[in-house]
Amino acid sequence: MKTEIIVIGDELLIGQVIDTNSAWMAAELNHVGWDVCRVVTVRDEAQAITEAIESALNHVDAVLMTGGLGPTSDDITKPVLCRYFGGKMRFDESVYKQVERYFAGRGLKMNESTRHQADVPDVCTVIPNPVGTAPVMWFEKDGKVLVSMPGVPHEMRVAMKGEVIPRLRRHFGDHDTILHRTLLVYHNTESGLSERLQDFERQLPDRIKLAYLPTPGMVRLRLTARGDDETLLASLVDAQTDKLHEILGNDIFADGDHTIAGALGMQLLQHQYTLATAESCTGGNIAHEITDVAGSSRYFTGSVVAYSNEIKQNVLHVPAEVLQQHGAVSQPTVELMARGVQQLMGTTCSIATSGIAGPDGGTPEKPVGTVWIAARCGDTTVTECCQFGGSRHYVIERATQRALLMLIELINH
Amino acid sequence: MKTEIIVIGDELLIGQVIDTNSAWMAAELNHVGWDVCRVVTVRDEAQAITEAIESALNHVDAVLMTGGLGPTSDDITKPVLCRYFGGKMRFDESVYKQVERYFAGRGLKMNESTRHQADVPDVCTVIPNPVGTAPVMWFEKDGKVLVSMPGVPHEMRVAMKGEVIPRLRRHFGDHDTILHRTLLVYHNTESGLSERLQDFERQLPDRIKLAYLPTPGMVRLRLTARGDDETLLASLVDAQTDKLHEILGNDIFADGDHTIAGALGMQLLQHQYTLATAESCTGGNIAHEITDVAGSSRYFTGSVVAYSNEIKQNVLHVPAEVLQQHGAVSQPTVELMARGVQQLMGTTCSIATSGIAGPDGGTPEKPVGTVWIAARCGDTTVTECCQFGGSRHYVIERATQRALLMLIELINH
Repeated sequence: MKTEIIVIGDELLIGQVIDTNSAWMAAELNHVGWDVCRVVTVRDEAQAITEAIESALNHVDAVLMTGGLGPTSDDITKPVLCRYFGGKMRFDESVYKQVERYFAGRGLKMNESTRHQADVPDVCTVIPNPVGTAPVMWFEKDGKVLVSMPGVPHEMRVAMKGEVIPRLRRHFGDHDTILHRTLLVYHNTESGLSERLQDFERQLPDRIKLAYLPTPGMVRLRLTARGDDETLLASLVDAQTDKLHEILGNDIFADGDHTIAGALGMQLLQHQYTLATAESCTGGNIAHEITDVAGSSRYFTGSVVAYSNEIKQNVLHVPAEVLQQHGAVSQPTVELMARGVQQLMGTTCSIATSGIAGPDGGTPEKPVGTVWIAARCGDTTVTECCQFGGSRHYVIERATQRALLMLIELINH
Repeated sequence: MKTEIIVIGDELLIGQVIDTNSAWMAAELNHVGWDVCRVVTVRDEAQAITEAIESALNHVDAVLMTGGLGPTSDDITKPVLCRYFGGKMRFDESVYKQVERYFAGRGLKMNESTRHQADVPDVCTVIPNPVGTAPVMWFEKDGKVLVSMPGVPHEMRVAMKGEVIPRLRRHFGDHDTILHRTLLVYHNTESGLSERLQDFERQLPDRIKLAYLPTPGMVRLRLTARGDDETLLASLVDAQTDKLHEILGNDIFADGDHTIAGALGMQLLQHQYTLATAESCTGGNIAHEITDVAGSSRYFTGSVVAYSNEIKQNVLHVPAEVLQQHGAVSQPTVELMARGVQQLMGTTCSIATSGIAGPDGGTPEKPVGTVWIAARCGDTTVTECCQFGGSRHYVIERATQRALLMLIELINH
């Protein structure tokens, strides 16, 4: 099935907000095998919205809209939809009750503008929104479907997963079972990997597809099977996964759709290892990535962000002489930081970073983007000196991903 | 002037990559007073790209495109543009030299596919790309302009700031000087603020505009002046800024276009204060936000991410009895964490958090989203118990912003 996403909101077109909704929606639709042909972002303007709807319904089977459903006067999506589909606004008692419950649960009172949230076009099916006040609206025209959802990410996600995607699949008679299996691969570029897997791809059964999803430091390989016999599909996917393991061996570092931090977490749990980090230039971002994973408290004890040299000395016990002789951005320092935090927190493993994120602080020998990274497991430490290009933010991001991968490599070795 | 952004790439329409380019570009264009009417994201498909170009050139004065310029065969933007503007491909010696220099600087060798980066349509002006290999291409048709840029954020940003925006302004005869002044306001909602500023807005000189840019925890107020006399504009903006200070008083917590962490940094520098953080549920994200600001090493010494109770005891010296009696997510614990890290790192100020980010770990008394936050300056500590809704990621984000704002409030008090 072909879909288009329409995103509505002035705040997106002045660059105040980054649209994360459409990528999330596209990933979910891709997951059930539906194509997103286009994403169009328009202002809170009747004509722009109407043109976008018209064009989308001409091109695709289903249109998914987010945004423009707030209670303020600049949110005009609802009346525009009502006019487009030739309806009248009506007051929906059940939506009102839901909004009332939502407000009561937060100790808030309803007012006139929130009462308007219960006004809906009489030409749509209202889908309840259990986690917010804006209703989800389902319109049909000539067999095609348009669904309007709130722009608040959490509300949109609950609606998409719980109601919209299942309803769309039913509406369009898409009853196939879909199975996914994701393997995380490192030490390979996307093009190198596709060369190694040429023969594998040729022998793949028709109902199984292979997708390459490269991200910094790794490639996600995703097998997708589609059909009506779930047991058969599962055994087919298992067999193909075994083949991939045979071909790629240790380059597959995780089985499952994880982030790098999530994959490391699985590995730590499996070995019953614990982890602490000592961060200078990454400034807490490694700890943040690790703790962004639910359940990370089972293996992560904590981090020392040692931004100043005093903290490297006093808390992580890096000797002053080492800092003086080699500098903070050096192999000996980063190695001692990894040891220091491992001892301080009593963990099996540790990660340490020290570098120059920029834009200032670079020298000819150690230019901006130079980052020393250490990964330690038991008594073994590996270190690496990386050189990243780009902005401060980018250097921090890349150093974070590389540090997590280095510990995965060390544990897998 | 009216613009449209076209973003090209399959990776965006399967949700593998979040498009951050268009928001950044929209903010830059908005900054010089240009409107972005629409953002359209399409696949690496000739027909989809051609339709998008056609439609955009019918609607606006200038079209800005990113992506689809890589050396691999799925990147087809260049031939599509060449065909659309009726040209032929030619080999550009100066682009080749630049790509060669770029590779040499990284110790890499050119190959056949990278050589293709120097093929450009003979109907465009090539704008040098000093930080990458894909050329920036400027096309004109019936007085309108289309600029194609690489999708790599760093390359696009360098091109936009250094070349594309100045050239666009010259091309369309936009010679005005533009001055911005941003004030950060807390304790006010967007609608509350616009009520308070009704009279102020009415008396604003024609050449000055006021914009409200709300983000979690604060509203950015931005004055924009446009005209040909820079000295006059500056004095007009100064006068209006003074009026805003008179009306809003201490609700203005920073003067300048900062993030919350950046505004806190300014304040710390001004008072010659130093800062450390002790984070449980925010897991290093506060430290990350602080260190994402260039120059933060002048006031930030570091952080203890105390994810486990042992670290709260052993490193931050929160007594075991307090943890047992009140729990880790409690006022006494978070207060002692703030004291502990202040002492450990020898700083003037500190921030501490302890909460339940979810999805597990909630109880009826302390549901998921409960976060205790402490901000400390000298001998004074303020604490707050917050209740955030939404996903784990969202709870961490909101707690981070609130914690930074609490310290700003405390210092300003």
